[in-house]
Amino acid sequence: MLNWLLLCVPVTLALEYLAPQQHLAIFIAAAIAIIPLAGWLGKATEQLAERSGEGVGGLLNATFGNATELIIAIAALRAGLHDVVKASLAGSIIGNILLVLGASMLCGGLRFKEQHFNSEGARAEASLLTLAAIALVLPAVYMMRAEEAPVLLGKVQYLSNAISVVLLLVYGLFLYYSLVTHKALFAGNRQEDSEAVDLWPMGKAIAILAVATALIAWVSEILVGAIEPSAKAFGLSNLFIGVFVVAILGNAAEHASAITAALKNRMDLALSISIGSSLQVALFVAPVLVLSSLIIGPEAMNLAFTSGLTLTMLLAVLITGQIAGDGRSDWLKGVQLLAVYLVFGMAFFFIPAIPAP
Amino acid sequence: MLNWLLLCVPVTLALEYLAPQQHLAIFIAAAIAIIPLAGWLGKATEQLAERSGEGVGGLLNATFGNATELIIAIAALRAGLHDVVKASLAGSIIGNILLVLGASMLCGGLRFKEQHFNSEGARAEASLLTLAAIALVLPAVYMMRAEEAPVLLGKVQYLSNAISVVLLLVYGLFLYYSLVTHKALFAGNRQEDSEAVDLWPMGKAIAILAVATALIAWVSEILVGAIEPSAKAFGLSNLFIGVFVVAILGNAAEHASAITAALKNRMDLALSISIGSSLQVALFVAPVLVLSSLIIGPEAMNLAFTSGLTLTMLLAVLITGQIAGDGRSDWLKGVQLLAVYLVFGMAFFFIPAIPAP
Amino acid sequence: MLNWLLLCVPVTLALEYLAPQQHLAIFIAAAIAIIPLAGWLGKATEQLAERSGEGVGGLLNATFGNATELIIAIAALRAGLHDVVKASLAGSIIGNILLVLGASMLCGGLRFKEQHFNSEGARAEASLLTLAAIALVLPAVYMMRAEEAPVLLGKVQYLSNAISVVLLLVYGLFLYYSLVTHKALFAGNRQEDSEAVDLWPMGKAIAILAVATALIAWVSEILVGAIEPSAKAFGLSNLFIGVFVVAILGNAAEHASAITAALKNRMDLALSISIGSSLQVALFVAPVLVLSSLIIGPEAMNLAFTSGLTLTMLLAVLITGQIAGDGRSDWLKGVQLLAVYLVFGMAFFFIPAIPAP
Repeated sequence: MLNWLLLCVPVTLALEYLAPQQHLAIFIAAAIAIIPLAGWLGKATEQLAERSGEGVGGLLNATFGNATELIIAIAALRAGLHDVVKASLAGSIIGNILLVLGASMLCGGLRFKEQHFNSEGARAEASLLTLAAIALVLPAVYMMRAEEAPVLLGKVQYLSNAISVVLLLVYGLFLYYSLVTHKALFAGNRQEDSEAVDLWPMGKAIAILAVATALIAWVSEILVGAIEPSAKAFGLSNLFIGVFVVAILGNAAEHASAITAALKNRMDLALSISIGSSLQVALFVAPVLVLSSLIIGPEAMNLAFTSGLTLTMLLAVLITGQIAGDGRSDWLKGVQLLAVYLVFGMAFFFIPAIPAP
Repeated sequence: MLNWLLLCVPVTLALEYLAPQQHLAIFIAAAIAIIPLAGWLGKATEQLAERSGEGVGGLLNATFGNATELIIAIAALRAGLHDVVKASLAGSIIGNILLVLGASMLCGGLRFKEQHFNSEGARAEASLLTLAAIALVLPAVYMMRAEEAPVLLGKVQYLSNAISVVLLLVYGLFLYYSLVTHKALFAGNRQEDSEAVDLWPMGKAIAILAVATALIAWVSEILVGAIEPSAKAFGLSNLFIGVFVVAILGNAAEHASAITAALKNRMDLALSISIGSSLQVALFVAPVLVLSSLIIGPEAMNLAFTSGLTLTMLLAVLITGQIAGDGRSDWLKGVQLLAVYLVFGMAFFFIPAIPAP
Repeated sequence: MLNWLLLCVPVTLALEYLAPQQHLAIFIAAAIAIIPLAGWLGKATEQLAERSGEGVGGLLNATFGNATELIIAIAALRAGLHDVVKASLAGSIIGNILLVLGASMLCGGLRFKEQHFNSEGARAEASLLTLAAIALVLPAVYMMRAEEAPVLLGKVQYLSNAISVVLLLVYGLFLYYSLVTHKALFAGNRQEDSEAVDLWPMGKAIAILAVATALIAWVSEILVGAIEPSAKAFGLSNLFIGVFVVAILGNAAEHASAITAALKNRMDLALSISIGSSLQVALFVAPVLVLSSLIIGPEAMNLAFTSGLTLTMLLAVLITGQIAGDGRSDWLKGVQLLAVYLVFGMAFFFIPAIPAP
């Protein structure tokens, strides 16, 4: 039924070329169009992963799992909208651990009194998130200090590049850890979910992957171009749109998978999807964007998030570690994560549409 | 023997009307008078709870358990002393988890080498505290940013109202969780403590509840009026008086109960009293005050604590989660919580009597 | 083979008196000379501890375990270089938990798939570290606020003195806890490591202790005098030299012991060395320096670290608690701690050689 939403793809393209002033309509159509496209991209990735054997398959999932976010972010990067890129990265990180994991724990908890998952795997992911949050705090501190010591401003880019390399290295080692040396801690991961899935022919998977990617890239460019005027039309800040609207779009399909897994009492899978996606964005998508910006331009992007976003990520990671650390979940844990997400949403909602400090 | 302190009630009233300039004497008399009144209020609440069956009884305890704090805070609110209200709320939150829980763990630990409690219940309470601390950080951040973007100043009240509604909702759901769906995690709670208590007639309980409430309200108004001149007389800031003096008064009776429970090796009860009281203040008393201030005036109160108080609450919650998370306690854990409380006390003590930044 | 490095001792002295302008050469020679001296000091301390029985021995280790740091810091204190002292204290705290513990977990994890240690002891140490980090945040906050309220500037020293007394008290109680009342939680501590060690005569141990101490003190004075010109020569800030160079020197011998212990699958010992050293610096060395500065001058030192160092310590303590809290380690945990250390190192490396804000 998600496929009906695919109708928004031609609608978006038609609007963009026939009624380019209808920013709000374009934004909404493009936003909805991305949801089923992201779903198909995810399905095609899984199919390829399935056919590639466990190791390479895990790597494929880990690399292309957030392809939609990456494509949207590259579109915003090329448009020079660094603040939108950062807002959607931060939104994706906190959205996956608060909204997706929270909704999974709540829905699962409404059906089962108590659910369990491998606490060692969850702890490993939680401490990697803390590592990422710490790494993202430092460039933000540079920017805050730059008022007193303007020379720091020139150093933020060097620091961001260096941190990006470290994060990518850590991500590579984490993949080696979770796919090779300690895969038992991540039992119940995506591969095992495939019992009932019938395999596509290889060619079909590749074709769908290619088409979905191309369409997402096209629609993303249109979406990004409509963000600023639409934000004005809604009376919202770019920041709010980036953190809470753009970030949710590319993850919509994964939201559904995580909740479905929780309802089947497969919390390991639900955690792997939710926390795993946050990790991917923080340790892979963000550094890849920083390093690509050096090449594809138009100007280099650093890792300095606004202090508000930095604080938000740090606090989100803190409470996630506390809630996911003991290997059990129930409905109240879900409520807590959702409440934190709601509170953050309200805080960004009331920020008026001015350049974020 | 606490009842001898009741003599301070008439003394307070006499001083207030015969020697209204003796602010310091009035402050001390009122402060002492509140201790036994709070004790009687607590006892009457428990009696009513006892007679009301488990569910309603738990609700009564959860709602009126911090009635004294609420009454003092309303008196300060009506006097327009928002900084005193916030200081006493913050003081109550950190005092219950650092001073009361610390003293309980220390005293219990001196008698027993190691004590145990249900770690799942403790973790649920600790993560709710983290949630509350996160919610309270956001309005404080708005205020800090307001220098650069004055438009935020007008939004703090909207954000505070919205956060208050979320906190009350979470508190309601937590009561449902701890009293209905997952009450096994909170075994050893107040109800079970009543073996040796003889029941009062219903009328007596209600009468005592009414008289104690009325007297606390009266004495609180007098106490609040004497804070500012007494702070000057002591050479202390309003802030210190609010955080460390006013906040301790209303909880004195609960301090005693928590330590008694720890000495009987009933750590679940001690935690339920100490962490539970902090939770009640953060998730129930504070939002109720914000929302009532919209009605009873004189002017609306927001949730923006000073940055010092916000940091203090966040750090207190952080170490409490670390210390209470593993379901065991010993005397060193008590020492650590008390040391943190002492260090905070010193930091506020050395702040001179100027308007807090 | 470390003993060959002792040749740097006469080289340092020769350079200092024959070629006092060769600051860089002097700095390097002194830095290398300290490594074997610290090793001998450590060995002599252990020998004395061995002969003193368990309780007094543990006390000796706990007091003189960081004697090298203490001596270097006193040399810098007497030279009035408070920023170098603080940088090396902070560097020692974060270096022991991130670099030493990280390297131990990584090396141990490369040999063993999973290693275990007493999680209760590790948690007790981690929460003490949190306590120390909280205590060190407060004077830093005073300094940050001093711009708005200059009167706070005069109070920082009082607050620092008071906090120092509390920290020493907590350290004393922790020794009593770990050596007397709860020593079972710290099984596998240094005493048990001595199977293969042959005992020295008492006189030899004392003589070596005295000679090593005297030489370290001498070389430290020379080292400290060369820091500022060397930092300029390297184009680095005093801060970077203090945090990442000076701090590593005095701990070099302990680095080796911790890694050796991890390779023997004795993680309790590795944790006791690494986290224990951080604790010693935070709860013993730092407050002793503050209180001695009141006596030995030239001017009183406070506990107000720069906000960057304070944040660094807080975040380092946060992730250490998360990683060490569950009583198991593997290579990825080591990688994470090392990555955080590396990221901090880069952040300080890019700070230009200006007075730290």
